[in-house]
Amino acid sequence: MKYWAGIDLGGTNIVCGLVDEDLNLLGKLKQPTEAAKGSGFVLERMAAMVKQLLEETGIPLNELQGVGIGCPGFINPEDGVCMFAGNLGWRDLPVAHLLSAKLQVPVFIDNDVRMYVFGEAAAGAARGYKHVLGITLGTGLAAAMVNTRHLYYGGGYMAGELGHIHMEGEHRKCGCGMSGCLETVASATGIVKQVQEVVRTGATSVLQEWLKDEKLDALTSADVSKAYDAGDAVAVQVMQHTGTLLGRGLAYAVTLYSPDALIIGGGAALAGERLFKPMREELKLKVYPGYWERLHIHQGELIDDGGVIGSAAFAKSQVQPI
Amino acid sequence: MKYWAGIDLGGTNIVCGLVDEDLNLLGKLKQPTEAAKGSGFVLERMAAMVKQLLEETGIPLNELQGVGIGCPGFINPEDGVCMFAGNLGWRDLPVAHLLSAKLQVPVFIDNDVRMYVFGEAAAGAARGYKHVLGITLGTGLAAAMVNTRHLYYGGGYMAGELGHIHMEGEHRKCGCGMSGCLETVASATGIVKQVQEVVRTGATSVLQEWLKDEKLDALTSADVSKAYDAGDAVAVQVMQHTGTLLGRGLAYAVTLYSPDALIIGGGAALAGERLFKPMREELKLKVYPGYWERLHIHQGELIDDGGVIGSAAFAKSQVQPI
Repeated sequence: MKYWAGIDLGGTNIVCGLVDEDLNLLGKLKQPTEAAKGSGFVLERMAAMVKQLLEETGIPLNELQGVGIGCPGFINPEDGVCMFAGNLGWRDLPVAHLLSAKLQVPVFIDNDVRMYVFGEAAAGAARGYKHVLGITLGTGLAAAMVNTRHLYYGGGYMAGELGHIHMEGEHRKCGCGMSGCLETVASATGIVKQVQEVVRTGATSVLQEWLKDEKLDALTSADVSKAYDAGDAVAVQVMQHTGTLLGRGLAYAVTLYSPDALIIGGGAALAGERLFKPMREELKLKVYPGYWERLHIHQGELIDDGGVIGSAAFAKSQVQPI
Repeated sequence: MKYWAGIDLGGTNIVCGLVDEDLNLLGKLKQPTEAAKGSGFVLERMAAMVKQLLEETGIPLNELQGVGIGCPGFINPEDGVCMFAGNLGWRDLPVAHLLSAKLQVPVFIDNDVRMYVFGEAAAGAARGYKHVLGITLGTGLAAAMVNTRHLYYGGGYMAGELGHIHMEGEHRKCGCGMSGCLETVASATGIVKQVQEVVRTGATSVLQEWLKDEKLDALTSADVSKAYDAGDAVAVQVMQHTGTLLGRGLAYAVTLYSPDALIIGGGAALAGERLFKPMREELKLKVYPGYWERLHIHQGELIDDGGVIGSAAFAKSQVQPI
């Protein structure tokens, strides 16, 4: 039998999983990253986790065909190099080569969002679709495009930065150094910031009762969903604006990529219809009907396991191209 | 020796050219399409033109390796089918198969703009770049993306409709049935319409002196360039707005595709710096610096021969993949 390991390498935790040829998840392990101990430590820990998982599932090392790693930051997947990962403090680290030397199997690395979307396309909500646009709504807004099982990279592996498209009329400062980027609105952080701004200018909201002003800093997008359900005008207005702006940005991506399926993942996707209804309305209004008619919109299916399954599926696709 | 034919199939004329392995144009023929005589006539004419060109250049038929056809409309390049071409009155016509039967060589067909951009990437202004975004500014605004010598298609071969991205604040009716599409402004037609609108509302322009009101219908984007050079305020304002809006739309495409080179072709590209200066300024302002720094902007080089060379180059890439 053939097996593949997938590693979701985050700034806080490493999650490692093992899948079979059909991408069924056979086992999973989680350990802290402890990036401060250096890249050598993190690489050793990843190797040890893969070995432990093989042992626990009773799979011999020689049946492991490859390992995929999803990593936040700028990755060169062709060379297997992490060019820059701020959370890990890594720069120009040949991760694939270094881990491959430890495990004696091929190792592949790519950006975590690309791995997630690859997973949804291979074994999740977008299984069966040829052209898949996936986005994750979390701290930021990230996107990736998969065409017939191939990730779209563009020059410098930088394609798909939907979150950093400048939206007319928006002016909030973005972490990237620009202003008015889509993710300053369409993300968990963006939702929270918009509510904080409106409430602090004196608008009446149930959130003022629920959270004293000093606690407003701890507001989450889940709180905003709760307020929305209680009929709170501020929450409704912010969700409406966020969904509309997301739909407008997606119209650009849909027109340029022509996807068959749009997959929405990430924590803030739990806002569900509160966000998706205005998003769909604006998207339908702003794209040529031919695009809208072929588009299937789904929430992500793989949730917590998306990074692990996607990374393993990507490794499999590199060793056994379809 | 190996040779390839490229056919630029328009509603008015058919242009057929022959290239060698290095994509040098060895000869060219032009004949009216006479589409009203039916698809059988047009196919026979294309076959006859290829044979005549071989004869004139003294190349035996068995050294012809393949033929590429660039055709306006909706094309399925995988199946070699023209799904819809309004100018020709064709629907679901298996052009590649039918012409291949006449010439006994492989025939390939694709959309004319994709063929043009493929040509600029293979043998024109974008030679040597891996990721090439090409646009043509003509009656409309069309675009195509080439990644490492492969055209990007998306679902239904519909990707890249930059001209039909809805621009906030724009409201002109578009030929596609929507309103506010980028090509209602950023195209030869768009430039002309904007000037006509402003002049008809009573603004003072040298174009009123140059062209009597009844002739304003015959205005061209070249006239607007001349008025711009004469310091005409209306022409300057329209070029500025058009360039700015084009830059804004390109910012969406650059962020999502991450091209290494942007090639600008089509008749209205002759406006040159009048249009490109505001375009560059807006594009630089609206994309993440990492995209701007890697982007090289060039005017198209192949001009009239782009369709023919591109179609031949595409046929070559299909028979001899690089």
